[in-house]
Amino acid sequence: MTSAPRQGSNDDPITVINIFELPPEQVGQFMTGWRVRADIMAAAPGFRDARLHRAVSPQTRFQLVNVAHWDSQEDLEATQDSDAFQDAIRVLREDPQMGFSAYPALYDVAVVLGRQTR
Amino acid sequence: MTSAPRQGSNDDPITVINIFELPPEQVGQFMTGWRVRADIMAAAPGFRDARLHRAVSPQTRFQLVNVAHWDSQEDLEATQDSDAFQDAIRVLREDPQMGFSAYPALYDVAVVLGRQTR
Repeated sequence: MTSAPRQGSNDDPITVINIFELPPEQVGQFMTGWRVRADIMAAAPGFRDARLHRAVSPQTRFQLVNVAHWDSQEDLEATQDSDAFQDAIRVLREDPQMGFSAYPALYDVAVVLGRQTR
Repeated sequence: MTSAPRQGSNDDPITVINIFELPPEQVGQFMTGWRVRADIMAAAPGFRDARLHRAVSPQTRFQLVNVAHWDSQEDLEATQDSDAFQDAIRVLREDPQMGFSAYPALYDVAVVLGRQTR
């Protein structure tokens, strides 16, 4: 996603946010496939955690937002390049029922306020 | 944001995600104003925490993503309706230099994977 690989320093992870725009009636089915891909990622070296957020209202433009943390960009990209993950992505792309846009990107944590218990 | 107010049950917070689309060259100035509004929110009853994420790459469509937690939707809305917050929003809206879109919405945490240390 960037040309310079990111490495979390001092045990700080990298943050990947994926923003999904899709019709609310497709969210349930999309999440089933998302879970398959997420389980592949969760078993990979360098994965730390992921939290998939689902919009409360069907009027919300971005129905799903995933916030994940990895040890490093190299770990993330190695997993994305793996056969298992590419196979799962292919299943998603070849599903004619699924119309969605995904906006995955790396982020830095710029400001933290409050006690951050979760 | 929804007609039925959300109350975090069993001490679970509500989650508000705000996704900002703006030109990368405006991010610095935008964050200065965001910080003013965030400080008002952070001092309000029911605020728990916020984490503003900034895209690593200028090519990322959504340059800023804020993930915040509140005790309840009522607390959030009371703060949004306050004079101090409305004044800060007015400053933002009246700035002719600022061109941005914001997509704030309530989310449920649908899936959690990993150890969630942060």
